[in-house]
Amino acid sequence: MFMHMTFTVAVAGASGYAGGEILRLLLDHPEVRIGTLTAHSNAGTPLGAHHPHLRALADRVLEPTTPQALAGHDVVVLALPHGASGQVAAELEALGEDPVVLDLGADHRLVDAADWEAYYGSPHAGTWTYGLPELVVGDTHQRARLVDARRIAVPGCNVTAVTLGLQPGVAAGLLDTTDLVAVLAVGYSGAGKSLKPHLLASEALGSAAPYAVGGTHRHVPEIAQNLRSAGAGDVRTSFTPVLVPMSRGILATATARLAPGVEADDDALREVWTAAYADEPFVEVLPAGQWPTTAMTAGANTALVQIAHDARVGRVVTVTAIDNLVKGTAGGAVQSLNLALGLPETLGLPRNGVAP
Amino acid sequence: MFMHMTFTVAVAGASGYAGGEILRLLLDHPEVRIGTLTAHSNAGTPLGAHHPHLRALADRVLEPTTPQALAGHDVVVLALPHGASGQVAAELEALGEDPVVLDLGADHRLVDAADWEAYYGSPHAGTWTYGLPELVVGDTHQRARLVDARRIAVPGCNVTAVTLGLQPGVAAGLLDTTDLVAVLAVGYSGAGKSLKPHLLASEALGSAAPYAVGGTHRHVPEIAQNLRSAGAGDVRTSFTPVLVPMSRGILATATARLAPGVEADDDALREVWTAAYADEPFVEVLPAGQWPTTAMTAGANTALVQIAHDARVGRVVTVTAIDNLVKGTAGGAVQSLNLALGLPETLGLPRNGVAP
Amino acid sequence: MFMHMTFTVAVAGASGYAGGEILRLLLDHPEVRIGTLTAHSNAGTPLGAHHPHLRALADRVLEPTTPQALAGHDVVVLALPHGASGQVAAELEALGEDPVVLDLGADHRLVDAADWEAYYGSPHAGTWTYGLPELVVGDTHQRARLVDARRIAVPGCNVTAVTLGLQPGVAAGLLDTTDLVAVLAVGYSGAGKSLKPHLLASEALGSAAPYAVGGTHRHVPEIAQNLRSAGAGDVRTSFTPVLVPMSRGILATATARLAPGVEADDDALREVWTAAYADEPFVEVLPAGQWPTTAMTAGANTALVQIAHDARVGRVVTVTAIDNLVKGTAGGAVQSLNLALGLPETLGLPRNGVAP
Amino acid sequence: MFMHMTFTVAVAGASGYAGGEILRLLLDHPEVRIGTLTAHSNAGTPLGAHHPHLRALADRVLEPTTPQALAGHDVVVLALPHGASGQVAAELEALGEDPVVLDLGADHRLVDAADWEAYYGSPHAGTWTYGLPELVVGDTHQRARLVDARRIAVPGCNVTAVTLGLQPGVAAGLLDTTDLVAVLAVGYSGAGKSLKPHLLASEALGSAAPYAVGGTHRHVPEIAQNLRSAGAGDVRTSFTPVLVPMSRGILATATARLAPGVEADDDALREVWTAAYADEPFVEVLPAGQWPTTAMTAGANTALVQIAHDARVGRVVTVTAIDNLVKGTAGGAVQSLNLALGLPETLGLPRNGVAP
Repeated sequence: MFMHMTFTVAVAGASGYAGGEILRLLLDHPEVRIGTLTAHSNAGTPLGAHHPHLRALADRVLEPTTPQALAGHDVVVLALPHGASGQVAAELEALGEDPVVLDLGADHRLVDAADWEAYYGSPHAGTWTYGLPELVVGDTHQRARLVDARRIAVPGCNVTAVTLGLQPGVAAGLLDTTDLVAVLAVGYSGAGKSLKPHLLASEALGSAAPYAVGGTHRHVPEIAQNLRSAGAGDVRTSFTPVLVPMSRGILATATARLAPGVEADDDALREVWTAAYADEPFVEVLPAGQWPTTAMTAGANTALVQIAHDARVGRVVTVTAIDNLVKGTAGGAVQSLNLALGLPETLGLPRNGVAP
Repeated sequence: MFMHMTFTVAVAGASGYAGGEILRLLLDHPEVRIGTLTAHSNAGTPLGAHHPHLRALADRVLEPTTPQALAGHDVVVLALPHGASGQVAAELEALGEDPVVLDLGADHRLVDAADWEAYYGSPHAGTWTYGLPELVVGDTHQRARLVDARRIAVPGCNVTAVTLGLQPGVAAGLLDTTDLVAVLAVGYSGAGKSLKPHLLASEALGSAAPYAVGGTHRHVPEIAQNLRSAGAGDVRTSFTPVLVPMSRGILATATARLAPGVEADDDALREVWTAAYADEPFVEVLPAGQWPTTAMTAGANTALVQIAHDARVGRVVTVTAIDNLVKGTAGGAVQSLNLALGLPETLGLPRNGVAP
Repeated sequence: MFMHMTFTVAVAGASGYAGGEILRLLLDHPEVRIGTLTAHSNAGTPLGAHHPHLRALADRVLEPTTPQALAGHDVVVLALPHGASGQVAAELEALGEDPVVLDLGADHRLVDAADWEAYYGSPHAGTWTYGLPELVVGDTHQRARLVDARRIAVPGCNVTAVTLGLQPGVAAGLLDTTDLVAVLAVGYSGAGKSLKPHLLASEALGSAAPYAVGGTHRHVPEIAQNLRSAGAGDVRTSFTPVLVPMSRGILATATARLAPGVEADDDALREVWTAAYADEPFVEVLPAGQWPTTAMTAGANTALVQIAHDARVGRVVTVTAIDNLVKGTAGGAVQSLNLALGLPETLGLPRNGVAP
Repeated sequence: MFMHMTFTVAVAGASGYAGGEILRLLLDHPEVRIGTLTAHSNAGTPLGAHHPHLRALADRVLEPTTPQALAGHDVVVLALPHGASGQVAAELEALGEDPVVLDLGADHRLVDAADWEAYYGSPHAGTWTYGLPELVVGDTHQRARLVDARRIAVPGCNVTAVTLGLQPGVAAGLLDTTDLVAVLAVGYSGAGKSLKPHLLASEALGSAAPYAVGGTHRHVPEIAQNLRSAGAGDVRTSFTPVLVPMSRGILATATARLAPGVEADDDALREVWTAAYADEPFVEVLPAGQWPTTAMTAGANTALVQIAHDARVGRVVTVTAIDNLVKGTAGGAVQSLNLALGLPETLGLPRNGVAP
């Protein structure tokens, strides 16, 4: 039971995919009223020109992204290119504003400034409360820290998929985290709306295209940070994302050797993973024999996981499916926002997907 | 220089995808005349009902697959479900026929009967000459064995991709083959024309779907066999194929730790791989910074490879793109057939792809 | 304001795409409790094996489709192959049951038995209340008839798209309906889960494929019936559906000559269409210059329409986008069901889509 | 029989899709040697960065598009934005060059300057020999005019599809051309490589998107010009292209009423169409009951046509499939080039497609 109260939410960067997706979810959220929507180059145009699927907001005109425009809301969601969110938050504070600020970008995810600088090549903007409620933190979960949080850094979409796939085994001490391998099939919306030749439909259709191969992807240190939170010591992850011809979805195949001395079979592993997520509203281990696909999670805030032990090889293979825009971005953000606002964690979040 | 001579080729199982693809290639082959085409349940129907893209053969009527129908050809290509090819070959021999027989199926690929029985669950039908000309065999290549071969087992498509990606490092002793991890994005034609719900377009579109996870895929022992041929000792491969919404193509991400004591950087690795394939007409290492995509190889007999060393992790990451129906099946078959017939290895085989 | 009351709904044929979609919508419907789910060949299996995206129902076991299983519900939804629904309804009546019955199939859509027999080749099973609330019926709409209806025939998906596109002009007497031309790009889920070769992903990807060309499609007489309801005299429609590589969606391009003596320009036409749908919750005419796409309606119960007058040709061109499974099938069904049950028409129905 | 002679061909605008496709075809052309390749903003980069599927040309460096760079070739192919080709041709002439010039763009297709100005909004650059060999011109075909042509305007891709679908009926006087309706499902490569938001993969996947609705498409007057060449008087075409999620292909559904007084059935129509194309190497009427799909023509220079008479409606429906980049652009260009150079018309042109 909770008090009905309506929170106003402004969204900066509303014309991009992450901005559109959080609006889609907030439109169905019973305790939220959507406030100001802003954009950079698209300021002055109606939202319907960019997200015509959001009929209820089609006539809303985008304002320029300024602290004044964002002022006066209970919550401000930043769906901006990385590098911009810290400044916006500071400017809001300078105006005497103290909304809950959700950053969908990368700026405040990493705790270690050296990690940030190594992967992003710019000064670290400081760390905000990490918005992955299911993350294991010692004996508890990150959701405890999200209650009443005022600055929330929403995780990277690939990071969420890999973390949720491996975390139960890490927390249980079953996995050797020094030689993880993750290969992800990812949909194009993860790359945003930037106008680059390799993101054109003609290039994407009929093709599978890897990028950031060889350890350069910026999600690598964030995965390590999460798995250390879940109990790992040294974490090393070979990480390869592959764009495949779908607009949404991440299918993460993440493998680890069993830790030295550990023995396990499929059923024992499934028990560990199932127990770890038994109380989670949005993470499910599928029944034995059924493997996740991205279509199973399309439009939903669900993460679906399956595990196998490849005895010949000595590796545990986990496969995790999420919708990169929902559980991977905007849905995860709303889940964290619910916690920050004292609302039920699942409020307004779809558990069932849209398929086929 | 070679003598112009025309060989007649019969294709059994012509209505399936592998059968159609070898016909597409043979239609452009200057030394081949296409003979009898057979099918099982589709016997009596014109080829144009099944492969309407093959205009030149649209009116050819499929005959039932019998040894009599296949007799009288220089070459017989078997594009049949596994388990059938051994019997057809024996029946041809019983008729006094001795064509070159190319098996596009799995029956005769594995040398080790125990491997066969473990993965296929049926008695081993014997081993034929393995149709991967580029495979390293001690100091030479498999192409030497294919010259004048009469029974050729065409490799599995995933196997070709993984083998070509890892082989140079294995042959050079750079890689630890005891803990390989390969994850492949694969197009739907690799699953054939069988009428199964998960192969429906509605299921495939917008989805990435893994299968045979956890070491059960039948291509696993064949990869090991190849890498041992290239110089590996113990080979263990975590192997996960993922169906993605494209009709053709395999993008194989295959990783290995550097062997103990080996040090390498990206450039040094690229030199090894580049040198290994310097004389290969169909395998290319891309320029530094360019990663293979399946679209680059669509319709072509080309395998494109790129390599990176992830120093933080200690793993070499190779990415290999092929067209599963061409280099992965029918193109590889024609390449081996050329060798078997004493023709130039590249005859009739496209090096350039069809994109976008 | 309405009384809160919960209705129980059984779904027969729950393992197909239409069945799955109505379950997706009913799961979010505040006044519905999902009752028995039945299937034919899939009886005995869990729903999660067929619709794993519906996490909330994953463990529900499908029962055989019998009147006994369907008895005891306020509403029975029939998502069955055509020919079956009449018998199920009769059997329920024989048990003394009188639920609201919604037929997602074709059996009871056509008023004219001769039309039925000409296009379906079997005896007519009788006509039920037609489930298109927006259909113009003289001076009113079909929704008036749906209030308290007990037997509802949900329209064909293509029919809904073409009807909504042309109806305002027909009702206003602007269009010559004797020479309509409609060409539709349709997603594969409209073809259902039947295991046919042309529905395989390998065939669909990269291809556009027409079917039922030349006036044979069974939706042709239903379009005529609707447009006559809206005021047309003679209706003749050249109708061509084209399967394109997407899982959902219909984009209907429907054109008509202006009726003799009528003059119009784009703005005047837009005014007529806009006025016609001004009070409709789920049909929108887009702003001038914006054309509907299927992505704009994915997952939503929305129909989006745009109109142009091609003065050089003397034809009005209408383009209508719907999600074939939502407004085209299951969403339209829930909309009619709401009316039949005395609930607000829009209850539980998404107006905003899921994109990209 | 023809003399073997090698012609040198330069391609201006080689980094775009049309440029890449003509290179793909010319690489397999036995009488052509590929000369200078030029580009505008991509000058200085290797072709492999833009068309990595063209392995044989991967290392060729693009030169700036200047008359000097294009000089010294037997043939110059212009794959430039419209408006540029006239100037390049004039500059070549000013250098004393007189190559065969093939314009893949629109500049020189239209005979009527008023048409050009109405649809393109710029001064007419003059008319070149129209590169559609199959076009009916009185009692003969356009191919007669292409022999020894020095300036060739390659048709628009949509125009080729619609013309080939309707032309036999027009030439035979069977069709009323005053009320044609054509709706086309088109792949994204037809829109080129321009970086526009609606061409992004995220927007395209899962969507069907119309454009240039209402008679504004620039291919409209070109269709009329062709059908008048084939014998029509007044030609009015309602023309609607719909982008669908495939990289290549056009499926054109084009309908016409039978001309006053004409009676016909399916078989009679098929005879007319079949006879019209009996001697054409690249246009085929499919067997009764089989409808064209774009996959049937992928990569091939083939146009596949099927016809039905919808007796209830009084319309003939034609469906034509082509590959927009091959028969629709680069293949049609090579076909015309062969004629211009006195080579066999079919030389170097694939008749069989690449599917699935």
